[in-house]
Amino acid sequence: MRASPDTSLGQRVMARIDELARHTDEPGRLTRLYLSKAHRAAAEAVLSLMRAAGMTATIDAVGNVVGRLTGERPDAPTLIVGSHIDSVVDAGRFDGPLGVVCGIVAVEELTRRGISLPFALEVVAFGDEENVRFPTNLSTSYALAGRYNPAWLDGVDADGVMLRDALIAFGGDPAGIPALARRRGEVLGYLEVHIEQGPQLEAADRPVGIVTAINGITRARAFVAGEAGHAGTVPMAMRRDALAAAAEMISAIERIGAARADTVATVGVAEVLPGAVNVIPARVDFTLDLRAPDDAVRRALVAEVGRELQAIADRRGLSLAIEPFMDSPATPMDPKLMAVLEEAAATVSGPAPRLPSGAGHDAVAMATLAPAAMLFVRCKGGISHNPAESITESDAEVAVRVLIDAIERLAAKVAD
Amino acid sequence: MRASPDTSLGQRVMARIDELARHTDEPGRLTRLYLSKAHRAAAEAVLSLMRAAGMTATIDAVGNVVGRLTGERPDAPTLIVGSHIDSVVDAGRFDGPLGVVCGIVAVEELTRRGISLPFALEVVAFGDEENVRFPTNLSTSYALAGRYNPAWLDGVDADGVMLRDALIAFGGDPAGIPALARRRGEVLGYLEVHIEQGPQLEAADRPVGIVTAINGITRARAFVAGEAGHAGTVPMAMRRDALAAAAEMISAIERIGAARADTVATVGVAEVLPGAVNVIPARVDFTLDLRAPDDAVRRALVAEVGRELQAIADRRGLSLAIEPFMDSPATPMDPKLMAVLEEAAATVSGPAPRLPSGAGHDAVAMATLAPAAMLFVRCKGGISHNPAESITESDAEVAVRVLIDAIERLAAKVAD
Repeated sequence: MRASPDTSLGQRVMARIDELARHTDEPGRLTRLYLSKAHRAAAEAVLSLMRAAGMTATIDAVGNVVGRLTGERPDAPTLIVGSHIDSVVDAGRFDGPLGVVCGIVAVEELTRRGISLPFALEVVAFGDEENVRFPTNLSTSYALAGRYNPAWLDGVDADGVMLRDALIAFGGDPAGIPALARRRGEVLGYLEVHIEQGPQLEAADRPVGIVTAINGITRARAFVAGEAGHAGTVPMAMRRDALAAAAEMISAIERIGAARADTVATVGVAEVLPGAVNVIPARVDFTLDLRAPDDAVRRALVAEVGRELQAIADRRGLSLAIEPFMDSPATPMDPKLMAVLEEAAATVSGPAPRLPSGAGHDAVAMATLAPAAMLFVRCKGGISHNPAESITESDAEVAVRVLIDAIERLAAKVAD
Repeated sequence: MRASPDTSLGQRVMARIDELARHTDEPGRLTRLYLSKAHRAAAEAVLSLMRAAGMTATIDAVGNVVGRLTGERPDAPTLIVGSHIDSVVDAGRFDGPLGVVCGIVAVEELTRRGISLPFALEVVAFGDEENVRFPTNLSTSYALAGRYNPAWLDGVDADGVMLRDALIAFGGDPAGIPALARRRGEVLGYLEVHIEQGPQLEAADRPVGIVTAINGITRARAFVAGEAGHAGTVPMAMRRDALAAAAEMISAIERIGAARADTVATVGVAEVLPGAVNVIPARVDFTLDLRAPDDAVRRALVAEVGRELQAIADRRGLSLAIEPFMDSPATPMDPKLMAVLEEAAATVSGPAPRLPSGAGHDAVAMATLAPAAMLFVRCKGGISHNPAESITESDAEVAVRVLIDAIERLAAKVAD
């Protein structure tokens, strides 16, 4: 066992997060898009950290940084710990890098303690989780899962640059992507540490939580059509006011979304036409975003919202059309891996709440390949995708300790 | 008594409405703005009709067409019948011209029947009721009422033309406006026939109705501020959703507006920020338009809406600001003149409903000078300010007969 370092694990996580945050495509704020110069610089920084931690590491054909610590049994399936290092525009520094850095610091600590694992442990820094630059969907984790869609290579960014060309300029190899696919039996499981991006852990006063599922999402556009009229001359009882109807519908959506545990229902956009102070609105177009950790629950939610909205439209004599434009199934996390994380968390910091993930993650892609689980870390005010995104050093300490504990528990199970 | 004409009074009204509708500033649709070429042409057409009906007629300093039929008693106060011949953009043909044409046809019919009145009867075609071109407020009827605001002359239209210059180009005389003011004792009363611009008479299956008051109006902007958040990660119970709050407020406004007889409450504009499908709205700005025929009722309405909205904001932990930007008092119609119109209507076509006017009219200005009353005529679907605006020939017949009967009743009272 090597000597204990001068700094705590939490301090080391925070310092490395800060190091990675220096790599940005835009001076003055953090923006690190897939295959950009800042992405390349961050990938090389991650590569150095991995190698310094004793891993063999490479940047793969699709731009992922993959570090590998060999295990004692060459035939044992590999445990993968990962998250992403790309970001949204004007991002915070924790969304993605936290999971990568926790994996690297865990390897450093396991090595320092002289612990060798029965299985190989890989830490992966995915490059395309935010899907901001190109019209893709978790392309870099789906590459490992063997589900890369070749059409993604033809996608272009806002400047007209094709993903294929950006990947070659980055140093990647479009032709090499298919070979990145792992076989199912080769992977023991996938663990991802990520900030919660919501306020539940803060409200529960707990540093970490166990993700039960990554919610499925239904999105739709609703079109409510009534009749315009003079705001002064049409009596209330004779109106077919599209906004009054939409208001009742939005209240119903809120009520239905709140009636079930773990479901959410949001109207984020509403446009009122014609939009004059003295004209009764003729039309309101609004969006629906309905999420649930279970697809049957989500379907029930969608059906109830549809029925309720139609009843409101019918009672008021207005027309309603609902056009779904997204139906993304839920990804349940693996119960055995969840239990391992839960036991580890209980040991390190006490009971960890179970909660669904409202946002998507690389775990969605990795769950198609192997059992997957996620550890959420409390973030201040639930804020993310924002420079104000933050976690505490002590929660970072908890996160990396839970990850190490979970890896050791999995090692013990494999060793048995 | 002259021979009865070949056509009914209703046919004559409709034919003259059609004639006036030919005068437009825009080919293919009816737009006749104050002091435009089309306004001048329409004014000259009205002048000819008035002279043909036996009136002495002029276009006055502010652009009104004023026809006068002298009475038997030179000292008796004048009865004025009027409405306007300017229009909104892409207008219907009845809003305004109906009242002018009914006045002229009434004079024709009185003359045909050989009836002479004790008082002088004037028919006035006002020119600036819609207040579309210049930033004015019923400027031409306020000129007769002696309340012309000289600052209106400095107002400019969208092309930068000043009202003063437009009036001179039209053939008017800015310096002559003060002399247009009538003295209170010189005017017996003001009667205006106008389309309802709402659906109440149609719903009641009655051709005409008696206006009780021209509603007062309060307008305000409401600003609801909550907190933006990720539509997937913030649980329903932890949200401060500005749109969900605004929806509850809009429903409350609708309910409060409908709870009192003759009041209306409208939210015509609502803007949702930031406005993304997956972001909980942080802010909603909306407008309020509250109207009542009685100012005390309107103040109670405004207070109740304010209390209710604040309670919703408080309960949800959101901030609310309400900024009033218009407070226009109600104009009650004269009870005696209302009774005369009501008796006339009862004789011609049976009971006429009483109803408030939600829109403003020249009668608002004229009521500051003399007792005023209005007769509303049923219009199809309550539609106005629209090419689809229409009334039936038989309702036009009723309107002009009620006007004639009312004039005769007033003549009888004066003669007594």
